[in-house]
Amino acid sequence: MSKTISPDDTLATLVEAPTSRRAFLRSASLTAVGGALVACGTGSEKNAGTAQKAAIPTGTPTAANTVAQTGGTMGAHDTAKSAASAMSASDTMDAMHEKGVKAFPAKTAVHGNQLLEPKLVNGVKVYELTASELQWETEPGKTVKAMAYNGQVPGPQIRVREGDRVRVILKNQLTQSTAIHFHGLEVPVDQDGVPFITQPPVKPGASYTYEFTVPNAGSHMYHSHHNAAFQVGLGLLGAFIVEPKNKAKEPKVDQDVVFILNDGAHGYTFNGKSFPATQPIVAKLGQKIRIRYMNEGMMIHPMHLHGMHQTVIAKDGWDQPAPWKCDTLNIAPGERWDVIVNCNNPGTWAFHCHILPHAESDHGMFGMVTALVVEK
Amino acid sequence: MSKTISPDDTLATLVEAPTSRRAFLRSASLTAVGGALVACGTGSEKNAGTAQKAAIPTGTPTAANTVAQTGGTMGAHDTAKSAASAMSASDTMDAMHEKGVKAFPAKTAVHGNQLLEPKLVNGVKVYELTASELQWETEPGKTVKAMAYNGQVPGPQIRVREGDRVRVILKNQLTQSTAIHFHGLEVPVDQDGVPFITQPPVKPGASYTYEFTVPNAGSHMYHSHHNAAFQVGLGLLGAFIVEPKNKAKEPKVDQDVVFILNDGAHGYTFNGKSFPATQPIVAKLGQKIRIRYMNEGMMIHPMHLHGMHQTVIAKDGWDQPAPWKCDTLNIAPGERWDVIVNCNNPGTWAFHCHILPHAESDHGMFGMVTALVVEK
Amino acid sequence: MSKTISPDDTLATLVEAPTSRRAFLRSASLTAVGGALVACGTGSEKNAGTAQKAAIPTGTPTAANTVAQTGGTMGAHDTAKSAASAMSASDTMDAMHEKGVKAFPAKTAVHGNQLLEPKLVNGVKVYELTASELQWETEPGKTVKAMAYNGQVPGPQIRVREGDRVRVILKNQLTQSTAIHFHGLEVPVDQDGVPFITQPPVKPGASYTYEFTVPNAGSHMYHSHHNAAFQVGLGLLGAFIVEPKNKAKEPKVDQDVVFILNDGAHGYTFNGKSFPATQPIVAKLGQKIRIRYMNEGMMIHPMHLHGMHQTVIAKDGWDQPAPWKCDTLNIAPGERWDVIVNCNNPGTWAFHCHILPHAESDHGMFGMVTALVVEK
Repeated sequence: MSKTISPDDTLATLVEAPTSRRAFLRSASLTAVGGALVACGTGSEKNAGTAQKAAIPTGTPTAANTVAQTGGTMGAHDTAKSAASAMSASDTMDAMHEKGVKAFPAKTAVHGNQLLEPKLVNGVKVYELTASELQWETEPGKTVKAMAYNGQVPGPQIRVREGDRVRVILKNQLTQSTAIHFHGLEVPVDQDGVPFITQPPVKPGASYTYEFTVPNAGSHMYHSHHNAAFQVGLGLLGAFIVEPKNKAKEPKVDQDVVFILNDGAHGYTFNGKSFPATQPIVAKLGQKIRIRYMNEGMMIHPMHLHGMHQTVIAKDGWDQPAPWKCDTLNIAPGERWDVIVNCNNPGTWAFHCHILPHAESDHGMFGMVTALVVEK
Repeated sequence: MSKTISPDDTLATLVEAPTSRRAFLRSASLTAVGGALVACGTGSEKNAGTAQKAAIPTGTPTAANTVAQTGGTMGAHDTAKSAASAMSASDTMDAMHEKGVKAFPAKTAVHGNQLLEPKLVNGVKVYELTASELQWETEPGKTVKAMAYNGQVPGPQIRVREGDRVRVILKNQLTQSTAIHFHGLEVPVDQDGVPFITQPPVKPGASYTYEFTVPNAGSHMYHSHHNAAFQVGLGLLGAFIVEPKNKAKEPKVDQDVVFILNDGAHGYTFNGKSFPATQPIVAKLGQKIRIRYMNEGMMIHPMHLHGMHQTVIAKDGWDQPAPWKCDTLNIAPGERWDVIVNCNNPGTWAFHCHILPHAESDHGMFGMVTALVVEK
Repeated sequence: MSKTISPDDTLATLVEAPTSRRAFLRSASLTAVGGALVACGTGSEKNAGTAQKAAIPTGTPTAANTVAQTGGTMGAHDTAKSAASAMSASDTMDAMHEKGVKAFPAKTAVHGNQLLEPKLVNGVKVYELTASELQWETEPGKTVKAMAYNGQVPGPQIRVREGDRVRVILKNQLTQSTAIHFHGLEVPVDQDGVPFITQPPVKPGASYTYEFTVPNAGSHMYHSHHNAAFQVGLGLLGAFIVEPKNKAKEPKVDQDVVFILNDGAHGYTFNGKSFPATQPIVAKLGQKIRIRYMNEGMMIHPMHLHGMHQTVIAKDGWDQPAPWKCDTLNIAPGERWDVIVNCNNPGTWAFHCHILPHAESDHGMFGMVTALVVEK
């Protein structure tokens, strides 16, 4: 999926053959929809051809930023071998980068992680999850084979309260057997969802019912635990959020955002989508947001937010002994980390995995990139 | 070793050619020994052919679990292309999965990490470690080239007390030079075991003696520090546990378990064995166990325990400022993490690395999988 | 770059064909310069041909270390197939290992991370960073294509104080566009350095000026955020250290060391150099040093210090709630971790990434290895 850097990548091959790579082909099929980034007033479109400084209004004085730029004086430059051709190659590259950013947030057919309302049956919250095989659009022009709950990748978000009685009815419309494990929930063993250890596999065409009293609060997950390296990689996963009985224990936030990372056959995705089809978080200045990271992939992803720090409050649904701050939080497979962001710095902030080949190639940003937009 | 998921893995190729893969060949050589998992009464064998819910007695009421299943009504299902053939393919896959689980814990010739009793010589605890080359059985039917201390992978467990005088006599029966580094112990530099920096290499056929007063408590390791990427990968490693002088500082536990992770030429292993030959931890309900994770491999392994959380108490032998809870603990190469598990949830619980391709393929669980069995 | 261990690496192929590998060719071009390791008095050169114990004076009694060695009695050994040839093969391997160690610290033309003194212009600290393409010497005999700020990899170290007014003038002499992101600094969004989101790309030949009041203290970084997987991999990165306004908050240390990790096209490097060209940290017994780890690579690197523990005090420039101890600290891409080491154990201590294939091959230590030398 990603371009990996190797000693064979010379500067020459990079700038001379930019049209031969995947990302260019992909971006050629994108429609610039004029999304949040451009709307945020960075004015980058005015300066695409030169290095002239964009006049961006911000809350912080930046008077000295009006220092003159030398853009466009390439011909006189000592170190440029061939100014004309280099300019052209870099322009080509920059155009691809710009196209990706302008396409953000790109529209795709269906989004995952939609809140699923339960049916209430005799005081039990009943959720139906139907697993099926389908095509999933991770970004405009890219569809992949998927396995999904209720047609969504990630599956629908389940959000309950500690102590709730919950029933989950799994309907298997796959061509493989499957089962659901409630990752992080300390349920009775017969509800743990591991075929041949705690239950039989749920055969193609069959249904299976899980039921339990929700034992512990926090940011948890549900996913297949049968042929799971394959089935989870293809999309059989979702968020299972449990609010604590004692609401006073929860931080008061303006937004509560689930952020599921994956890196399998679908490429590098946030909530089932790759940049530019990832969704930005849009907040008002002064708002407080909670982000619940969940890694359903096979690799670590150190999540880096620009412009503001993240205050880590919980690991796997359990409060940390004391909150601690960072700007880059390493999320390993199977882990969940909850953080608070105080949106006190207005603007459009890049927000991405800091394993750079998961986020950018010579054709621009892709994969695990989104933005936090703090509106004044 | 593992099956990695790629975009080329279509659902079709997966279900149509299941017999072409390594794991199937391997599992064909396994004997179902009727191990701890089956003995735990999940009754999965009664339900292997259908999705009918197993009636599993647990301490928690699960009356609503008796909801009827739709198993076997495949013919009427809309989305199944060809019910008969799909059923057959999924049955084949499930049979492989079941075979692996039923074989657990599979018997292998020799286990590593056996407690090594010292000889007491004038108040000095003397340990002899002989490094040699041999064949090591990681699971039934799979033997690999190994380098081992005293014929064990991991090498024998050394367990001493802070302040003890310890002598370790290394005998090199390898065809390469070697040396022992006491990873985590703050020994005098001439006992640090790094050839050409703190000592000469120990040649084939030669012996070398280390001696020191044990300086600091905690979960430490010993391993080769010469051609170490190779020698440690092949098995020259072991646990070096140091109990603190002040016993009052230690948490009181019913079991103290060493859990060494490796991922080199031997495949994905726990204490030198791959599932189904890994050993379960078997505890009584209400017991408290301490797990000492040690990563001697080249990759991270986020260790996920089902059903109960882990309370992290120490890192590299040093107490954390405050204990903290999780269910998935990321262990990086060279790290040791100590956790406490309160065995308060009865049953057989999967316990595995959550990088799923280290733990499961389309042919069932393998590699870094074991179980915590909590007996009522 | 590294030798990776695979099931195909038999002991036989390893010992019989040692001259066919990269590291041997490399070490053949090294000059033994008699560096800090040998100067430290381990006396290993006296014992290179045998396993006889070096008599190393230390502060801790090690009388029992005089136990006789059996070195050289190979002919009588049962397990040696062919004593003569095995001895010769292990000698060949050991000689390569020794050569690398003796070459440490090897001299290379230019070092990065040199402190950059600002020009003071009307109370503003002005830094000029010129990005250009050049050849970079990572170790004697190995030069790689690079992109560098001011001809250094890492770029020059910027060290300011919280509240300082800072101007950074970027001059682009590359053949690609670029931009600087101040990673970890909570600057106004128009100074954030992300082309097409917060500014236009800085074209080849153009200049661009950043200016801001330094908002938060800590160990931060600056690096390219345009085609960054490529440009950062080639060297467009540096340390941006911010001392807090309130000096009383800082731990008092005798040395403050920046330790930038990278793993791209340049191989495994510390501050732009690979062993044996990495630079040791040299401290006096009793000194306290602060190490600021920064990972600009694509992989984790668990940094293991021998002989003394590391006390972790800050993450990404933010104090941890309480200091905690370890000997192996996992650093993920984009992260910064600050630790304190109390140099209370005299000697020359290996200090390396504990992903062993990043640090050692059958031809000796390479890549991410250096030493902490504690002088009495």
